[in-house]
Amino acid sequence: MDLYTLHKAHVLTPWSAQAALNPPLIVRGEGAYLVDQEGKRYLDLTSGLVAVNLGHGHPRVVRAIQEQAQTLCYAPPSFFHDKRALLARRLSELSPWPEGARVFFTPSGTEANEDALKMVRTLTGRFKVLAAYRSFHGSTHGSSALTGENRRFAAEPAVPGALHFFAPYPYRSPFYTLDPKEEVARALDHLERVLLHEDPARVAAIFLEPVVGSNGVIVYPEGYLEGVRRIADRYGILLVFDEVMTGFGRTGAPFAAQRLGVLPDLITFAKGVTSAYVPLGGVLVREGLARRFDQEVLWAGHTYSGHPLAVAAGLAAVEAYLEEGLFERGRLLESWLKEGLGALWQKHPFIGEVRGLGAFFALELVKDRSTKEPLSPWHAPLSPAMQGLVRALLREGVYVMAKHNILIIAPPLTLKEAELEAGLAALDRALRGLEVEAG
Amino acid sequence: MDLYTLHKAHVLTPWSAQAALNPPLIVRGEGAYLVDQEGKRYLDLTSGLVAVNLGHGHPRVVRAIQEQAQTLCYAPPSFFHDKRALLARRLSELSPWPEGARVFFTPSGTEANEDALKMVRTLTGRFKVLAAYRSFHGSTHGSSALTGENRRFAAEPAVPGALHFFAPYPYRSPFYTLDPKEEVARALDHLERVLLHEDPARVAAIFLEPVVGSNGVIVYPEGYLEGVRRIADRYGILLVFDEVMTGFGRTGAPFAAQRLGVLPDLITFAKGVTSAYVPLGGVLVREGLARRFDQEVLWAGHTYSGHPLAVAAGLAAVEAYLEEGLFERGRLLESWLKEGLGALWQKHPFIGEVRGLGAFFALELVKDRSTKEPLSPWHAPLSPAMQGLVRALLREGVYVMAKHNILIIAPPLTLKEAELEAGLAALDRALRGLEVEAG
Ligand SMILES: Cc1ncc(COP(=O)(O)O)c(C=O)c1O
Ligand SMILES: Cc1ncc(COP(=O)(O)O)c(C=O)c1O
Repeated sequence: MDLYTLHKAHVLTPWSAQAALNPPLIVRGEGAYLVDQEGKRYLDLTSGLVAVNLGHGHPRVVRAIQEQAQTLCYAPPSFFHDKRALLARRLSELSPWPEGARVFFTPSGTEANEDALKMVRTLTGRFKVLAAYRSFHGSTHGSSALTGENRRFAAEPAVPGALHFFAPYPYRSPFYTLDPKEEVARALDHLERVLLHEDPARVAAIFLEPVVGSNGVIVYPEGYLEGVRRIADRYGILLVFDEVMTGFGRTGAPFAAQRLGVLPDLITFAKGVTSAYVPLGGVLVREGLARRFDQEVLWAGHTYSGHPLAVAAGLAAVEAYLEEGLFERGRLLESWLKEGLGALWQKHPFIGEVRGLGAFFALELVKDRSTKEPLSPWHAPLSPAMQGLVRALLREGVYVMAKHNILIIAPPLTLKEAELEAGLAALDRALRGLEVEAG
Repeated sequence: MDLYTLHKAHVLTPWSAQAALNPPLIVRGEGAYLVDQEGKRYLDLTSGLVAVNLGHGHPRVVRAIQEQAQTLCYAPPSFFHDKRALLARRLSELSPWPEGARVFFTPSGTEANEDALKMVRTLTGRFKVLAAYRSFHGSTHGSSALTGENRRFAAEPAVPGALHFFAPYPYRSPFYTLDPKEEVARALDHLERVLLHEDPARVAAIFLEPVVGSNGVIVYPEGYLEGVRRIADRYGILLVFDEVMTGFGRTGAPFAAQRLGVLPDLITFAKGVTSAYVPLGGVLVREGLARRFDQEVLWAGHTYSGHPLAVAAGLAAVEAYLEEGLFERGRLLESWLKEGLGALWQKHPFIGEVRGLGAFFALELVKDRSTKEPLSPWHAPLSPAMQGLVRALLREGVYVMAKHNILIIAPPLTLKEAELEAGLAALDRALRGLEVEAG
């Protein structure tokens, strides 16, 4: 049997009915490109799932993996490990807290949120946690309970005590305003009302993506996150930033916390920490809180916690980000993306809004700019128009992650300007094709 | 700062209060040995956490990782991938079902159980799931709800609908008998009573470790698993074997399902699939059930699902198991372990029971064989006596995983007879030391 048939026969692919699948079969990666078995190249404009921040085949990380593979792949997490210590120090240095941080390592992003959930409950002795609608925190049952979109429903009835509120979404305001200042004021008032109805003294933490990721790269208007921090402080509630997507340079800083100038108490991360080369995630806990686990048992653990091969890859990746100035390079990509995507917006009425920061942008596609009717409905399978667009892009040799009516443009931080130009030209053609079809 | 101090300052270690930790700092692995930064070697008699079934540094898997690292570390799981197809075919061939299987890949064992939980609910339209007390299924909130020991309490209140029953434990029978036949008959009667009180038509699945792992390597007496299978069939309930520990040769067969001759409907796995060299886990679903996901959406997904580097390591590991006859070698280790541990039992009254199969054994330690009082109490921190034993073993250069009053002896399947002899001699001395201290 050929590989394609084998894959269909024996692999279950995430978030899909299997019969209709016909994606490329990838065998190789090179910088910003994925290459399929026929040698066709795909410009990876979403860094996989907003993860491969260094692009594919970064020599420093590849070498670190190769060396660690023959030195030590695995040791039980109850034992200490050299690279684990070194990566943890780096992460503490990169963390936004002057007091520094400690790290609990996990195999994935969802496990980081699962463990953060346990930690905030232990640390506060409180039970309820708040998270935003239109968020994604992972697919296991705890993270699903935090998640505010339809990928959580298969894990319901949810873990008790995880409650949702509305956060700002200026393009489709849940607060009935077009004014960002008013959006922020009302969103904070709403959050405080939810807290008062739930009893803030029972709330352990607020979980937030500092920039909403897979639900549309929503950048909160100025003042919102500061306001959430103030409210959290007022009631002794911990603030957890889920930086699984926003971490490691995505927003033009090590963490979005720094780019946005707001300090959480815990940060969950994954993806970019190894540029996704080896599965790794974790929870950064600011030192003042982490210290509590000196005496109190930390009731969390995974076979692969602090996995030697994974932390070696993470250490090399973090060193690559630092030495190549890739955190700052996110700002350069921001300027290119703003201009390039802005130009597409000028040309294509299907683009309702372009938004983002750093190397993290979204196009929100609509049937009509005045009604803002989504090109593909929320919480439903991709519409034929969106499917057609994704297929057209793949034909053009461009991969872009599509979710509902959103295209996420989040290329590797190493992307060259000419590569981006080629990608945007393909996007231009694909959007034009859509318009021609629509008549 | 030296590495040890750095580790203490910045890494949070699983399942522990951090202040008292002082384990070795491991920098290297070689076959059955872990090596610390001072060059001291530790014979790894528990394969890490019952995971490194090939021992450390297996050249075939190391080479596969090195090659894959420079070919492709990551691609989005929505795309197909060559090694993923090949590993999935191998797993289907290794699976116990004549009809074959499909695989959903995850980053870890707990995520495999999380996804299996979602799958059985989707597949049956039923909500309740049953699992055994004295089980471990993982630490995220869904798997914790299935877990039947104290590592689950930090994730409570649990995911609704996960209920517990008692399974056989001949050494400390929950069914008031010393006769294995009676133990089985009563255990099955008990399970059926629980089902009838819960309404079997509302029960989606029974989750079971076919051999209880970290809670003491309990081998169910003959007839129990067959009986559970019969009961499940009677009520249209799915049977899930959690083979995260028992998979990949641990019991002297690819899966315990084969060793024990009982067919589940789903098998969750992790650890041994890559010999823990790269984080990987997954759910094997027999073809007849998996087919349902051709039309129905599979609501599960992870950034690292089917991670290319991980599946390449898995493919090489599985080929190594097969070509080196390591599944069968588990039977050879069984004969050595039975004899060697049996001899220790003869000498040391602290050993209440030796039990196990394949390369998977436990010593249950007691203060007194007649009262069976555990050497370290259930659901409590390790007693000074157990701590002393673990420390003595480490001084001897032997690592054995200890939990409550249990030592788990589960060496790599590649272990040499002389290595085992040396390990057992050290265990002999450590146990003698304990007896001397106890007077
Ligand atoms: C913000 C956010 N949190 C958590 C996750 C879950 O991470 P993982 O897929 O590694 O479990 C994701 C994945 O996309 C994410 O975007
Ligand atoms: C039987 C069993 N299931 C599940 C797990 C969880 O696997 P992981 O630690 O990879 O999440 C373990 C871990 O020890 C296990 O022994």
